[in-house]
Amino acid sequence: MTTGLVETANGPRPGGVSQVALYPVATLVQKFGGTAVGDPDRIRAVADHVARTVRQGNQVVLVVSAMGKETDSLLRLADDVSSTHPGREMDMLITAGERKAMALMCMALHDLGIPADSFTGSQAGFLTDTEHRNAKILEVRPERVRAALDAGRIPVVGGSQGVSTDNDVTFLGRGGSDTTAVALAHALDADACELYTDVTGVFTTDPRVVPTAKRMDRISFDELLEMTATGCPKPAMRSVEYARTHGVRLHVRSAFTWQEGTWVDEEEPDMEQAIVSAVTYDTSEAKMTISGVPDQPGIAARVFRELAGSGINVDMIVQNVSTEGVTDISFTVPHDDLDRAMSTAGSLATEIGAGGVTSDSAIARVSVVGAGMRTNPGVAATMFETLAECGVNIQMISTSAIRVSCVVSGDRAEDAVKALHENFGLSCN
Amino acid sequence: MTTGLVETANGPRPGGVSQVALYPVATLVQKFGGTAVGDPDRIRAVADHVARTVRQGNQVVLVVSAMGKETDSLLRLADDVSSTHPGREMDMLITAGERKAMALMCMALHDLGIPADSFTGSQAGFLTDTEHRNAKILEVRPERVRAALDAGRIPVVGGSQGVSTDNDVTFLGRGGSDTTAVALAHALDADACELYTDVTGVFTTDPRVVPTAKRMDRISFDELLEMTATGCPKPAMRSVEYARTHGVRLHVRSAFTWQEGTWVDEEEPDMEQAIVSAVTYDTSEAKMTISGVPDQPGIAARVFRELAGSGINVDMIVQNVSTEGVTDISFTVPHDDLDRAMSTAGSLATEIGAGGVTSDSAIARVSVVGAGMRTNPGVAATMFETLAECGVNIQMISTSAIRVSCVVSGDRAEDAVKALHENFGLSCN
Repeated sequence: MTTGLVETANGPRPGGVSQVALYPVATLVQKFGGTAVGDPDRIRAVADHVARTVRQGNQVVLVVSAMGKETDSLLRLADDVSSTHPGREMDMLITAGERKAMALMCMALHDLGIPADSFTGSQAGFLTDTEHRNAKILEVRPERVRAALDAGRIPVVGGSQGVSTDNDVTFLGRGGSDTTAVALAHALDADACELYTDVTGVFTTDPRVVPTAKRMDRISFDELLEMTATGCPKPAMRSVEYARTHGVRLHVRSAFTWQEGTWVDEEEPDMEQAIVSAVTYDTSEAKMTISGVPDQPGIAARVFRELAGSGINVDMIVQNVSTEGVTDISFTVPHDDLDRAMSTAGSLATEIGAGGVTSDSAIARVSVVGAGMRTNPGVAATMFETLAECGVNIQMISTSAIRVSCVVSGDRAEDAVKALHENFGLSCN
Repeated sequence: MTTGLVETANGPRPGGVSQVALYPVATLVQKFGGTAVGDPDRIRAVADHVARTVRQGNQVVLVVSAMGKETDSLLRLADDVSSTHPGREMDMLITAGERKAMALMCMALHDLGIPADSFTGSQAGFLTDTEHRNAKILEVRPERVRAALDAGRIPVVGGSQGVSTDNDVTFLGRGGSDTTAVALAHALDADACELYTDVTGVFTTDPRVVPTAKRMDRISFDELLEMTATGCPKPAMRSVEYARTHGVRLHVRSAFTWQEGTWVDEEEPDMEQAIVSAVTYDTSEAKMTISGVPDQPGIAARVFRELAGSGINVDMIVQNVSTEGVTDISFTVPHDDLDRAMSTAGSLATEIGAGGVTSDSAIARVSVVGAGMRTNPGVAATMFETLAECGVNIQMISTSAIRVSCVVSGDRAEDAVKALHENFGLSCN
């Protein structure tokens, strides 16, 4: 924190409290996603908001994504030019998108009389490994960003980019701008990291499915991680993990209505936890089952080692109890990986003497998430009862300390979500 | 030169000689302009040509401009976003264009099995001053480019960009890619710098006006400088000056037909010089006359100091002999600067007690250029006779050692060019 934080009587409890009351003089990292800076009008609207935030006495650091669908356009251009896409060159190409957005944002701020300087990932001190297209941050040395702040200027940093230990331009991957923002907030010891997006916050479930879904004022890191892992689209999971590890308070909010959104923070032990905070669903995966697998030590390890070796991101894994020396192993994989996973698993099934491999693309994973589950048994039972009542068959189950997930038929997912949202008392009154 | 240059028996005389015969193993900097890399097909066509050049045993370094009209699009985007365009941010924005082109070019080369690495101006070692939008190169430290060459890779460098002494991204200005290429050729001690463009070389005059115009095999730096200063569109004058100063041989040629173009080199004293090499014309300027100027020491200096102070780029200046203590001063200014120049000159005329200021936008400057003029008197006389014969009135005259320019009425410029081209024996047989 580079300026004094004056806390309210009860300490910084953000939910519902306006930001000004919370932080009379705060340092805020504000990140704007692609739709938030999608065209010149939007860039000016963001500049207006930043100007308001600054005039309220806050120090602001911006992180911007590429405008609208620009990253997709650049990827298409690469496809049009060549069939080989060396990572170093792809990163050089893609990061041009954020450069444009950050330079234009600075111009819009200058227009409002707010001095601003753009910084590439390299200039902002993002040192990464050499894993192009998906580089990891090794260190953030934000000297130039800090110097700009100290000089009363707004630093505008290009999201999702850095410079590698080989001095090459790197891209942190899709959704990497959230990570840039969180890492910068940590490096600058900022009071909060605000992720401005096209939703108004984190909801108890998808409002398109359940119109009575509520925006949460507050959620814990753990809960949000379980939610993003099971279908809640924003923010990027990696950034939430980074925020939790380094204790960076997040504020997920709208770049269109500018209203207060959802704060993401540590759980407070004395706080009464909702048993279930949210219901999520995810239709991006397919289910695979290897049946008749010999129940010997090391077989499961071999299966998932081979799949990992093929670059397939296996998610939920369930193994049934062994019957007569054989067992079934089921797991989910992204739709995009299904063909490769079927081919890998097919050869493997023959080698290990398994019965066969089947797949089902028409599935959904429905999950309930809540920190209060830790101390409230019976959530799983309630979930299964609710699904049974509306005639939804459960194909797979997996649980964590604060989540219960069921794989169900894809065409029943919305019914399941509606029933769970209602039965766990999440709907608006 | 990093590899051995084997010269032909008569030494390196490039005109009409194929490049392979000239340089069995040469280091070449090849620069491709915006139209040459205007779309994915063009980028692949350039990659094919580079592959051929490499397979002939040459070492190649590429310099690329932004694709097609991209720089114009970026400038329009800046206008759409804001009315203030700080130079630092404009340079960050505009240089995104070359980044895209160079990354895509590397991908196209990889597709052909040619390893290639892209380098920003900063990565290629272009250190500049802090004059944004029009930065000057202070030094070129091409260590990374040389290392890539030594490793058998093609370096692809973004044109017209560098890093300032303040560690900011800088743009060298429109047409700056030619300068990048020439400076890099000098820093690498390359055998030649090839400027690939949408014309097949330097012509004796504009072939659109005179169909019998000939492409020159060879021209001296001095001649080309006079030509670019008087209307020959390519290459950028600044790059030709740089090449002359540092003795970098240029080859102006087509990125569409790939045929040999025009070599630009030092004059060779033993070479028989054409008296007139080319006829050029330029309609980008307007004529201004301040009449009745008191003929006192310091008045002319004051006029042009004030105009320079207003950022007006005054070109041809003619002052008549004084009659009765007053004189007329005429000069040309770019059309875009005419309004400002008229306003500046108008106030000034009142202050110094001059008669008045007039302007004429419908003029053209027609010039004949040739190194042989130095030793052949009478070129000016022939020019004036030719213009008189076809009834073209001469409004202003200025000369240099190897050039005679006349300002004539704009609607007679093409007639004048045709007659001069014919009379000086430049037309194809």
